[in-house]
Amino acid sequence: MCTRLYFEDSSVGDGIGYFFLPEAMNEESFKAASEFVSSTYLAQAQASRNSVSNRIQNLITQRRIPDEGWSAEAIELFIREVSLWDSNNFPSKAAIGEREGRCISPIVSNRHWGLIHGIGRSGDVSAEQPKAAGSSFLLSLTRSLVRDVIKNICGIPNLPKELVVLPIATGMGIMMGMTAVSQIHVSGGDRTMKRRNVIWSRIDQKSCIKAMTSNPYLQVHVVEQIRHADGPLVTDVTRISELISQLGTDTIHSVVVTTSTFSPRSPDDIPAVSKICKNLEIPLIVNNAYGLQCSKCCHLISESLRTGRIDLVVQSTDKNFLVPVGGSILFGPLADRVNTIYPGRASISPILDLLITLLQVGRNGLTELLQKRRENFDYLKQQLEVKLPKSKAQLLVNNNNNISLAIQLHGIVTEQLGSELFLRNVSGARVFIRHDTSKQMDPNIASLKNFGAHTSEPFVDKYLNAACAIGTTRDEIDLFIRRLIDRLGGQI
Amino acid sequence: MCTRLYFEDSSVGDGIGYFFLPEAMNEESFKAASEFVSSTYLAQAQASRNSVSNRIQNLITQRRIPDEGWSAEAIELFIREVSLWDSNNFPSKAAIGEREGRCISPIVSNRHWGLIHGIGRSGDVSAEQPKAAGSSFLLSLTRSLVRDVIKNICGIPNLPKELVVLPIATGMGIMMGMTAVSQIHVSGGDRTMKRRNVIWSRIDQKSCIKAMTSNPYLQVHVVEQIRHADGPLVTDVTRISELISQLGTDTIHSVVVTTSTFSPRSPDDIPAVSKICKNLEIPLIVNNAYGLQCSKCCHLISESLRTGRIDLVVQSTDKNFLVPVGGSILFGPLADRVNTIYPGRASISPILDLLITLLQVGRNGLTELLQKRRENFDYLKQQLEVKLPKSKAQLLVNNNNNISLAIQLHGIVTEQLGSELFLRNVSGARVFIRHDTSKQMDPNIASLKNFGAHTSEPFVDKYLNAACAIGTTRDEIDLFIRRLIDRLGGQI
Amino acid sequence: MCTRLYFEDSSVGDGIGYFFLPEAMNEESFKAASEFVSSTYLAQAQASRNSVSNRIQNLITQRRIPDEGWSAEAIELFIREVSLWDSNNFPSKAAIGEREGRCISPIVSNRHWGLIHGIGRSGDVSAEQPKAAGSSFLLSLTRSLVRDVIKNICGIPNLPKELVVLPIATGMGIMMGMTAVSQIHVSGGDRTMKRRNVIWSRIDQKSCIKAMTSNPYLQVHVVEQIRHADGPLVTDVTRISELISQLGTDTIHSVVVTTSTFSPRSPDDIPAVSKICKNLEIPLIVNNAYGLQCSKCCHLISESLRTGRIDLVVQSTDKNFLVPVGGSILFGPLADRVNTIYPGRASISPILDLLITLLQVGRNGLTELLQKRRENFDYLKQQLEVKLPKSKAQLLVNNNNNISLAIQLHGIVTEQLGSELFLRNVSGARVFIRHDTSKQMDPNIASLKNFGAHTSEPFVDKYLNAACAIGTTRDEIDLFIRRLIDRLGGQI
Amino acid sequence: MCTRLYFEDSSVGDGIGYFFLPEAMNEESFKAASEFVSSTYLAQAQASRNSVSNRIQNLITQRRIPDEGWSAEAIELFIREVSLWDSNNFPSKAAIGEREGRCISPIVSNRHWGLIHGIGRSGDVSAEQPKAAGSSFLLSLTRSLVRDVIKNICGIPNLPKELVVLPIATGMGIMMGMTAVSQIHVSGGDRTMKRRNVIWSRIDQKSCIKAMTSNPYLQVHVVEQIRHADGPLVTDVTRISELISQLGTDTIHSVVVTTSTFSPRSPDDIPAVSKICKNLEIPLIVNNAYGLQCSKCCHLISESLRTGRIDLVVQSTDKNFLVPVGGSILFGPLADRVNTIYPGRASISPILDLLITLLQVGRNGLTELLQKRRENFDYLKQQLEVKLPKSKAQLLVNNNNNISLAIQLHGIVTEQLGSELFLRNVSGARVFIRHDTSKQMDPNIASLKNFGAHTSEPFVDKYLNAACAIGTTRDEIDLFIRRLIDRLGGQI
Repeated sequence: MCTRLYFEDSSVGDGIGYFFLPEAMNEESFKAASEFVSSTYLAQAQASRNSVSNRIQNLITQRRIPDEGWSAEAIELFIREVSLWDSNNFPSKAAIGEREGRCISPIVSNRHWGLIHGIGRSGDVSAEQPKAAGSSFLLSLTRSLVRDVIKNICGIPNLPKELVVLPIATGMGIMMGMTAVSQIHVSGGDRTMKRRNVIWSRIDQKSCIKAMTSNPYLQVHVVEQIRHADGPLVTDVTRISELISQLGTDTIHSVVVTTSTFSPRSPDDIPAVSKICKNLEIPLIVNNAYGLQCSKCCHLISESLRTGRIDLVVQSTDKNFLVPVGGSILFGPLADRVNTIYPGRASISPILDLLITLLQVGRNGLTELLQKRRENFDYLKQQLEVKLPKSKAQLLVNNNNNISLAIQLHGIVTEQLGSELFLRNVSGARVFIRHDTSKQMDPNIASLKNFGAHTSEPFVDKYLNAACAIGTTRDEIDLFIRRLIDRLGGQI
Repeated sequence: MCTRLYFEDSSVGDGIGYFFLPEAMNEESFKAASEFVSSTYLAQAQASRNSVSNRIQNLITQRRIPDEGWSAEAIELFIREVSLWDSNNFPSKAAIGEREGRCISPIVSNRHWGLIHGIGRSGDVSAEQPKAAGSSFLLSLTRSLVRDVIKNICGIPNLPKELVVLPIATGMGIMMGMTAVSQIHVSGGDRTMKRRNVIWSRIDQKSCIKAMTSNPYLQVHVVEQIRHADGPLVTDVTRISELISQLGTDTIHSVVVTTSTFSPRSPDDIPAVSKICKNLEIPLIVNNAYGLQCSKCCHLISESLRTGRIDLVVQSTDKNFLVPVGGSILFGPLADRVNTIYPGRASISPILDLLITLLQVGRNGLTELLQKRRENFDYLKQQLEVKLPKSKAQLLVNNNNNISLAIQLHGIVTEQLGSELFLRNVSGARVFIRHDTSKQMDPNIASLKNFGAHTSEPFVDKYLNAACAIGTTRDEIDLFIRRLIDRLGGQI
Repeated sequence: MCTRLYFEDSSVGDGIGYFFLPEAMNEESFKAASEFVSSTYLAQAQASRNSVSNRIQNLITQRRIPDEGWSAEAIELFIREVSLWDSNNFPSKAAIGEREGRCISPIVSNRHWGLIHGIGRSGDVSAEQPKAAGSSFLLSLTRSLVRDVIKNICGIPNLPKELVVLPIATGMGIMMGMTAVSQIHVSGGDRTMKRRNVIWSRIDQKSCIKAMTSNPYLQVHVVEQIRHADGPLVTDVTRISELISQLGTDTIHSVVVTTSTFSPRSPDDIPAVSKICKNLEIPLIVNNAYGLQCSKCCHLISESLRTGRIDLVVQSTDKNFLVPVGGSILFGPLADRVNTIYPGRASISPILDLLITLLQVGRNGLTELLQKRRENFDYLKQQLEVKLPKSKAQLLVNNNNNISLAIQLHGIVTEQLGSELFLRNVSGARVFIRHDTSKQMDPNIASLKNFGAHTSEPFVDKYLNAACAIGTTRDEIDLFIRRLIDRLGGQI
Repeated sequence: MCTRLYFEDSSVGDGIGYFFLPEAMNEESFKAASEFVSSTYLAQAQASRNSVSNRIQNLITQRRIPDEGWSAEAIELFIREVSLWDSNNFPSKAAIGEREGRCISPIVSNRHWGLIHGIGRSGDVSAEQPKAAGSSFLLSLTRSLVRDVIKNICGIPNLPKELVVLPIATGMGIMMGMTAVSQIHVSGGDRTMKRRNVIWSRIDQKSCIKAMTSNPYLQVHVVEQIRHADGPLVTDVTRISELISQLGTDTIHSVVVTTSTFSPRSPDDIPAVSKICKNLEIPLIVNNAYGLQCSKCCHLISESLRTGRIDLVVQSTDKNFLVPVGGSILFGPLADRVNTIYPGRASISPILDLLITLLQVGRNGLTELLQKRRENFDYLKQQLEVKLPKSKAQLLVNNNNNISLAIQLHGIVTEQLGSELFLRNVSGARVFIRHDTSKQMDPNIASLKNFGAHTSEPFVDKYLNAACAIGTTRDEIDLFIRRLIDRLGGQI
C-alpha cells in the first residue's frame, strides 16, 4: 500500500510532489504469522506498528498538524526514517565532492539525527536538494504544517499560498523582504533607482531599523505614532498618505508597518495602510514578529489581505511557537522571491525545531496554549489593576494591544529599574523614561527623539512594559507582580 | 580558586571580558574527607573531577583548541554547565517579555542543551546578550578557538583580529560582506551611489552570483579566466586592472575573487589582485568557501594579507570542519561591520556544532584530518593517472589546485553521467559538457557563456570533476574510481 | 565551601561517609568579576549556577526527595558529574585488570552516562566499590531517598534502618530472602537442616512459589484463604498457628505472607501472623510487591513492625514507582544479610532508573500520584457499580483491598475473555474460571486446586480482576469499562 | 514482501517463531513515484531505506552478527521500531493491571527506548512475555547473536543449543546453576538430600565461593592447586578423583572448575575433570567468567564438550564484550532449567547493552578486538621481560595462562602497592603477599590458607598480577609499565 501525496507548493519536484511511505506489515503477513505465533501478541504488535504508520501517513496526506501531539518516540522514529533518504546516510557511498554532508562529531550528528546537508540549493533555498531528499521533504512538510496552523489555528483563513520557513530570525527576514522589493522594482531592467523612499510607521526596535537600512541606497521616512483623545498611540494614516504624495508615488520603495508591539503603541492600522498601498501599487511589508499568537493581530492581517495589498508578512518562529531563536516565517506574494534570492544553502536546525514542536504539541496543545495566553493576559491586566499601589504605578489602558501592557510609573524611577528587576529574576520588563534627546540610528533614517517610546512626544514620562506572551504562566505573573510591588516599596 | 580570563575581542562586555570557572572540590575538603572515607577512592574522584575542571580552565584561559579531543561526556557536561547561565534556565524566574527563551518541546530543548536564546542583540549579532550570558560566552569561545585553528593549524599566522562565526552559510556571508562594503561607501553620508561596479573574477557558482547581486543597484563585471600556454585556467589580472581604469577607480564597489574552486580553474591570484586593491583603495572580498582545508589557499591569503589589501574572507564551517550546513566564518577588517549590520538575533545551533566538533576532534585530530586529506588527494590523483583507460578518460594536470581534479572525457558522454554516478552512490561528481550557449544569471550581470566551465571558451569539451575534501576516505576514492571506470566501460 | 555529609547506613566507607560537593563560584570571585563585566549578567549566572549546586547540596545533606522535581537538565548534569568519580572515567588511566569498566559502544556508554562498573564488590553488593566511587555514591543516595519516601510518603514511619535496593525483580528478591533465612538457621554451624518447613498463606502467583522453592530441600505448606460470612477471602491465622504446632516450632524455616493481591483475596492479616512469629521466634517474610502505593498495605506493615516480628519486606520498584521492570526494594533486619550473600557485582541500571524518577517527580509529584491513584480507584469502583449490566457482571465487594477489584461474571464466559480484551488494547485484566482440578506447581509444594483463585474452594465460579495501580488514568478506566461492557454485549 | 523467520530456540511461541519485517517502499510505489519526482532522488532514497531494511532482514533471517557494524542511527531506528510492539507503547490502551510498563520519567523511558516491561514471565524468564512482544523478540535475537559469536568467533563450534543471556552477573549465574543442580537431584521426588558435597578446584575469588555456598545445606570440599616441577599451578585431577571415591559418588552434588584465572594459577584441566564427571554421572559447572575472549579457554571447553560432561558454563557479558556490569551468558544442558527456576521477570537493560554492542561492533570489529587482545598480551609479556629491573621484579612463566601474568616481587613490598598504583591511575593490578594464615570464608567451606594465592602453599612469596583483557590498549600497557617501574624505584 503506497500513499500518494500531492504537495501544493511548487518547490518540491516540478510543481507536484509525491512521497511514499514505507508499508507496515501487511494483512496477509499477519494472517500467515498467526498460524505460528500466538495471534494475540502479533496482532497487537501489528496494530501498534500500524498506528504509528497511520499517524505518519495521515500527517503527510492531510498536511495538517495532528490533533493529539505525538510521543517523543514516534517523532524521533519518523525523523530517523526520513534522514535515511539523505545521501550522506547512503550505504557504501563514495562522496567525491567538496560538500557531502560529512559530520565527524557523533554528538553533532546525533543531535541532528543525521540531517547534515541543510536545506536549499543554489537556485532556491526552499527547493529540493538532490543530495538531501529527506531534509527537503521535512522542510516541505514543515511549511505545510505551518500553513495549516496559521490558517486554522491562528486565524488567517485567507492565507496566501506563498509561504516560507527560513533559518534566519525576524530581522533578517525583513531584510530579505526589503531586498526582494528592490529586486522587483528593477526586475524590468530599470536600474535607475528611482524608488528609494521607504515609509515607516515608527516602532522603536533596532532590528527593524537595521533590516530596513542594510541597503544604504534606501532612505527611510519616519511616520510618528499619534494619539486620538485619551487613547493609546495609533498609526498616523493621514501622514502616510501625505508623505507618499509629497515624495511622489513612483519614488516609494515600500511601506513598513508593525502589528505586535509594546503598549501604549498599538498594532498599526494595517487595513487602512494596505488599502492605500493597493490603490497606489506600493509594496507593503508587515512586521508581525510575535503577532501569530494574538487573534487581533491575525485579524488585522486577514482583513488587509482581503481588502488591501500586503506583499510580505514576517514573523518569528521562537516568539510564536516556543522554539529556540533562529527561524522566521514569511508569507505573501513576495515569499517566493525571497526563496530565489537567498544565496546558497542554509541550516535545517530551526526548521526541525519547529516541526518537532508542532508534532509534539499537536493541534489541541497549541489551541490550548493560545487560549491560556489570552486568559493569562486578562489575568495579568486584572491583577495589575487590583494590586498596583496607585500612588506609585498605574495601568495605562490600551484596548488595541492584547499582548503588551504599559504601567505608568510615578515618583522617582530610573532606567535601572529594568536591571534591578532582572536581578530579581524578572526578565523582559522594559522601562521607558522620557529623555527628549534624539538618536541617530543610521545615516539614512531621520533621527528619533525619545527613542523607546515610538513617538517623539510620549504622553507619559515614565512607564514599564510587561507582556503576556505564549507560554507565560500564571505563576510567573504572580511572581512578577509581587517583585515589582516589592521593588516599588508597596504592600502586597 | 577563580580563573581570570581576558577576551581580546571586544564583543564581550565592554572590551574586556572576565569569566570565572566553578571551583572543583578544594584541597582542604579532600584532606578533611580522607579522615572518614578511604582516601584512595576520594583522591581518585578528586583527581578525575579536577582533570575535567582543569581541561575546561585551560580551554578558557589559553583560548586554544585542546591537543587531545575531549570525550563526549566532558563536552556535554561543559555545555550543560554553561547553559545554566542563560536566563531561561534561571530558577523561579518570572519572564514577562515577548521573547524569553521558552521552549516547550523537551526533544528540542534537550538537543540544544537548554540554549534557547540564540546569539546577539539588536546592536550587534556577536555582542553579549544580557538574557543569555552562557550562549554569549560559548559564541565568544568558539570565535577564539576558530582563530587559533586558522592561525596555527590552517596556516594563516597573520590572521586579522576581526573574525566572526555566523549562523548563515557562505553565500549569505558573502552577501552580508557586499552589504557591509556598500555601507562603508556611504558611511560619510554620501549617498550618490557612485560606487556601483563590482569586478568579479568568474567562477561558475550560483550562490556567489546571487550573493553579489542581491542589491540590484550593483553592476557586476565579469573577468573571464584565461590560460597561459598549456596550463590550467588562471586569473586575468591584467584585465582586472584595465577594467578598473576603464570604469573609473571611484566607481568600483569591490573586487570579488575565489580560492577554492573546481579544476581546471585555479585559485585566483589573490596576491596580485590584493596589491591592485591596496594601491587603488578598493575593497576586496575573498570567497574562500572550502579553502581553510588547503594550505595552498591559506598561503595565498596569508601572503595577500601581508602585502596587499583584503577586506573580508568568507568560508564555510561545514565544508572545512565537517559540521552540518549552516555556518560561516568571516574575517578581515569588514567582519566587525558585518556584526553591526546584522539585524537582530540568530540561531546558536551552527556555532554549537562547530564548538563541539573542535573540542571533540582536538588539535591532533584536526591536524591529522588535514594531513590525511592531502595524502588522499595525492592518492586520488595517482590512482586516476594509473587506472583510467586513456582512450576514455584522462587526468587534466593543474598543479595550482590541490582539492579538485578534472578528468577529460573522450567519446560519447552526456551530462547524465553525473546522475548515473549518483545512482551508483557516487555523489559530488560534476560533469561539464561544452554547450556554447549563454546563461543570463541575473539582470545585473553580463551573460555567462558555457556556464560551468568558469570561462566562455573552455579548452576541453567534456570533463568531470572530483574533489578530495577533508573527510574523504581512501575507501571512497577506490569505490569512485571503480564505479567510474565500470560506467565508462573500462576494465578495472 | 565544602559540604559535610553523614550517611547513616554503614555500607559506605566504614560506617561513616563524607562526600563533598564541588564549590560553585564563590562570593569573592563574583565580587571581583563584577568590576569587569556587567554585574547584572554575572550575578544572574552565579545565582542560577548556585541554585543547581544548592539543590544538589540539599539533596545530599538532607537525604530527602526534593519537594519539587528537578529538570531533566539538572538531573543529567548531576549524574554526569558523579560519573567522573568512577575509575573508568579517569584521565590517562592504565587499566590492567580483567574488569575495568571498559565500554566500547558509545550508545551504551551514553545511555548509562558512563556508569559502567555496576554496583557492589565481592563481599557485599551494596558496599562501596573502590573502582566506582561515583556509582557507589549514587546507590547509597538512592537508598536514602527510598528510605525517605517509604517513611514519609508511603506511610511506614517506623521503617527499619536496614534497606537495600537491588537490580533484581521481586521474585528474585524473595528468593534471596529465603536463602538469607536458610543461612541464619545454619549460622551457628548446625547444618542438620531441621528447619525445612515453610508456612505459606496461599496466593496464586507463580513467581512467589518459584522463589520459595528454589531450594529444593525446603517443604512448603499451604494455608488456604478462608471466608468469614459473606466477606472476602482472608488469612486463616488459626490454621497457621495449628500448622506450626503440628510440624513443631523448631522445624519451621519461615512464614511467607502477602499484602498486595488480587481481589477477592485480601492483604494477609500480617499483624496477627507477625505476633505469632514474634512469640515463636520464627522468621516472617512479607511479599509487598506493589503495596507501597497503598496506604492500607503500608499501615499493615507499620503496625506489624510495631507489635510483631518481620524479617524482610520485599517490593517492586517498577510496580510502585513507574520505572522499567528490574529492581526491588528489601527492608527489615534480613536486608543486610541479603547484601552479604549476594555473589559479586550487579547492574546499576534499575537503581539509576529509580533515582532519576524520584528526582524528576519530586515529593509533590509522588504525593499527587498516590493521591490520584486512590481517587481513581474510587472512581473505577463507582463506575463499575453504576455501569455494569447487572445480569452479566457485578462488582464483588471487598473493603480490604484498595488496589484490585473483582467483577463476578454471569452467563457463558471463557478464559479467552482476557485475551479478547487484550486484543482491544485492554491489558492487565485477568479472568478466573472455576476448574476444580489441581495444579502441582513444584515437587515440594502441595498441589493447588483451582489455581488462580487463591483458595481451593472459590465462592464464585467466574470473575475478572481489574486494578487501579499508580499511574492508571481516568481515561484508561473509561476505555476499559466501555470495552468490557461492549464485549459483554451490554449497552454503555 | 514479508520475511519468514524460524527461531530454533523454543522459547519464542511454542517451539516455532515467525517474525515479520515491515515492508519498505515497494517497487511499484517507486516506479509510480518516479513519474512525478525526479527519479534519481527517489531511487536513492529507496535504495538507502531498503539497505537498512535489508540489513535488518539479514540480521533476523540469518541470526548472525553482521560483518560490518551498524551505525548508531540504524541501531536506534531498529530498537525504536521493535519497541512499538510492546503493549505499553500501544495506542489508546487501557492498562488495568498492576504492572503495565508505565514509565513516568521521560529520561528513563528514553534511555530504554520505551522498553519498560523487562523480560520473562512467571514460568520462564526467557519465555515470550505477552505484554512485551518487542522485548521478547530482542531477547531472543540477542541469544541468537551470542550463539553465533561463541560458535564462530570465540571458537566453541560444538556449542550446546541451550543458551541463555540473563540480567545477572557471573556470580549470580553460578548461584542459579548450583540451584538448578539441586533441583535436578531432587527432581525424582527424592528429597533425602544425599547429594550435599561440592568438589571445588580452588580459585580465590569471593563471588564464586558465595555462589556455591548460598545454599547452606551444601558442603564445599576444596581441592588445592598443585605444581609439577617448575611449572605453574595446575588442577589436582587425581585429588578430585580420590575425593569423589572417598565421599561416595552418590553424595556428590557437583564439581566446580574455572578457566579464566589469575596467574600463576592456570585454567583448570577441564577435559580431564569432565571425563571423570561423565564416567561417574556427576554434574560439572564451569566458571568461564572472562574466558570467551581467550581461544585457549574456549578450546578447553570445546574439547570437554566433545569428550566429557559439562552441565553449565557461566560467563560475564561485561568482561568479554565490553558492556556495563550486569549480565551473564549461561550455556549447557542446565541452561534451560535455570530459565524455569528464575522467579518472575527481570531487567532487559544488560541484554540491550549486549545487543547494541554486537550490532555496533560487528563481526569484523569483534574479531579484530580479540586479535588485538592476543597481540597486546604478547606485547605486555615481552615488555615486562625486557623492561623490568630483574633485581626488583621478574615475570613468572606460565604458558597455560594467556590473559593474566604474574610478576614476582623482590625486596620490601607491601600489599599497599596495589592502592599506590591505583593512586597513579593504574587500576586492576593485584598484589599477593604470603601470610600463612587461614581464612574461613563460609561455615560450609574448609578454611583457605594464604587466600589470594589459590593454594595454601604458594611457591613465591610476593607477586603482582596484570592482565591483558579485551579492550586493553598498548598505551595502557606502556603507562602501566612506566608507573610500576617508577614505583619500584627503577629506571625506565
